Amino acid sequence: MSLVHHTGSSVATERTRVELGPRSYDVVVGAGLLGDSASFAALARPGQAVIVSNETVAPLLADTLQRALAGSFKKVSLLTLPDGESHKHWGSVEAVLDALITARADRGAVLFALGGGVVGDITGFAAACYMRGIDFVQVPTTLLAQVDSSVGGKTGINHARGKNMIGAFHQPRHVVADVSVLRTLPRRELVAGLAEVIKYGAVLDARFLDWIEAHLADLLALDPAALAYAVRRSCQIKAEVVAADEFEAGPRALLNFGHTFGHAIELGLGFGVWLHGEAVGCGMVLAAELSVQLGLIEPARAARLERIVAQAGLPTRPPPIGARRLVDLMRVDKKTLEGRQRFVVLEGEHGSRVSAAPEALVEAVIDAAALAAK
Amino acid sequence: MSLVHHTGSSVATERTRVELGPRSYDVVVGAGLLGDSASFAALARPGQAVIVSNETVAPLLADTLQRALAGSFKKVSLLTLPDGESHKHWGSVEAVLDALITARADRGAVLFALGGGVVGDITGFAAACYMRGIDFVQVPTTLLAQVDSSVGGKTGINHARGKNMIGAFHQPRHVVADVSVLRTLPRRELVAGLAEVIKYGAVLDARFLDWIEAHLADLLALDPAALAYAVRRSCQIKAEVVAADEFEAGPRALLNFGHTFGHAIELGLGFGVWLHGEAVGCGMVLAAELSVQLGLIEPARAARLERIVAQAGLPTRPPPIGARRLVDLMRVDKKTLEGRQRFVVLEGEHGSRVSAAPEALVEAVIDAAALAAK
Repeated sequence: MSLVHHTGSSVATERTRVELGPRSYDVVVGAGLLGDSASFAALARPGQAVIVSNETVAPLLADTLQRALAGSFKKVSLLTLPDGESHKHWGSVEAVLDALITARADRGAVLFALGGGVVGDITGFAAACYMRGIDFVQVPTTLLAQVDSSVGGKTGINHARGKNMIGAFHQPRHVVADVSVLRTLPRRELVAGLAEVIKYGAVLDARFLDWIEAHLADLLALDPAALAYAVRRSCQIKAEVVAADEFEAGPRALLNFGHTFGHAIELGLGFGVWLHGEAVGCGMVLAAELSVQLGLIEPARAARLERIVAQAGLPTRPPPIGARRLVDLMRVDKKTLEGRQRFVVLEGEHGSRVSAAPEALVEAVIDAAALAAK
Repeated sequence: MSLVHHTGSSVATERTRVELGPRSYDVVVGAGLLGDSASFAALARPGQAVIVSNETVAPLLADTLQRALAGSFKKVSLLTLPDGESHKHWGSVEAVLDALITARADRGAVLFALGGGVVGDITGFAAACYMRGIDFVQVPTTLLAQVDSSVGGKTGINHARGKNMIGAFHQPRHVVADVSVLRTLPRRELVAGLAEVIKYGAVLDARFLDWIEAHLADLLALDPAALAYAVRRSCQIKAEVVAADEFEAGPRALLNFGHTFGHAIELGLGFGVWLHGEAVGCGMVLAAELSVQLGLIEPARAARLERIVAQAGLPTRPPPIGARRLVDLMRVDKKTLEGRQRFVVLEGEHGSRVSAAPEALVEAVIDAAALAAK
């Protein structure tokens, strides 16, 4: 990580390298980056740039990005998708591919994903598939995408019967996370993003969890320096984990803490009813309680995590779907192997690991949490 | 390459390694392999096997493969797709993904592509996309697939406006090429497969081209030893090229000899009117003539190649699409870079390379060939 330059704000621009050999790239975090052509100058080439955004983000930010890219590419065009998780299907990927073919884009074209996780996942998957792979750049505009989905190369779409079941590992060429744009974010989405920030602290960095606990109010008040630190530290942790395990054969799975429960909640409610981060917030509380029931942690560690999740404004209780149904929905999950459901659990004072868990126990944990909600 | 075992026929089973580090795999060529459980024993695991085939091949061979796999997997199921290049679209990939989700297949599942290039391309792309990548095995049943598409990890589907425009590099875990099954192949498809065999000789191995010229009659007569040698030598050449350049950043592009013309012909006629190999046969003749016009080879080299292509029973003259239209169709091609159309051309006595060519010259070459056909 190195200090790059100041942008006029009090937030320094800093760079984190994701070390993946020939697929290495920088994650640049700062304020005011989106409108600064210097943020993208290193990507300049005699090819086309196609910005993919959605109908909510594009009116606010697409012009700014288009102007910033103008000097670096032969042509810059914009494709606007509908907004929302319910559009994370092949039809949206096809819209991107059609736009590329219509523009006669060749292998030198670059896609820019301007939006949240859904835009990033769709755009990344389209980049992975077009001519068997072209470059793409993540320009995440939600906290969730800045701290999580824009880094690490997971791209894809949902299947009617499973979240993110269809996709590719395709690393971005570059990530530009501009915390200034978080001012435009609805509070509910800001809060949802905090779930993934808390996740890093909970499973991988106890000192970061302390920092989060102490700065939750600053983050919720959109303090730029606090946001920049939270994004940067999250990206550093993610970069290290991804560098060690690009294809999630081992430690990277720890980043799915809360996600097995969370995906089942999203699937059970229908995509988009709860935001991903909200489902993960509740999922972390359930996973922590499962860890207690498995005898892996003291109840105090789970209670503290639940308190932080609640203070962030995230749900800590499952929606009324029914424990049986949630357990059924979990069976279609990428972490299942040989038919056994696996969970990321907490262990000891600060540890975490992947563990199998009896279905009856998982069901009991959900039931107890749902009852407590009444 | 090593001698593995005899199968009762006079054809020895031989193994060629595709060296790609953690993605390395064997291509096994022989006779009678499909019904021999030993061909697949090394793949055994406590997961599911799903055979993907088409309505033409499945009735002839699926039972045999299903029995051969039974001992090595927990469960073996079969999905039968419609036959033909016109079905190489997302709907077919989705059918495979749906079958996997319905079977609750996890990341330990293995897909077996039993069929020609279309089945292999669809199955490989589905394997690339399911849960961001699961294993698949190529069991090619056409000469074309055995000598070309089953090796090297190119997978994908067509777009209405471009062949193979959507896809992934996803290497198979194993390839089993059983030349016995070529007896079931319609003669037209056998002939189409010879186009790719001739291609290897034409661009990369002058001695192999001599051998092909001397053994064309044996190959057309389905002589098992001749077929096995042609498949094995083709796979050896392809394995070397792929090992040197997995993602086609350099020398691998040479394997596209004849394909820029060929793809335009397929696209102009509508997919499936000419077989891929037929279009490539004619495409090689046109590319050789372009090489003459560029002053890169003597006319004799082009004339000899045309003679071999004709003797194989492949078309040497373009269909009546019009040169202008074919040139237009070429513009949407993965080998285009920065708007410039590039061709694999022949050079000197035995050489080949990638070269740009003026559109007017390309058009003139097609026009001259079309006139000669009248």
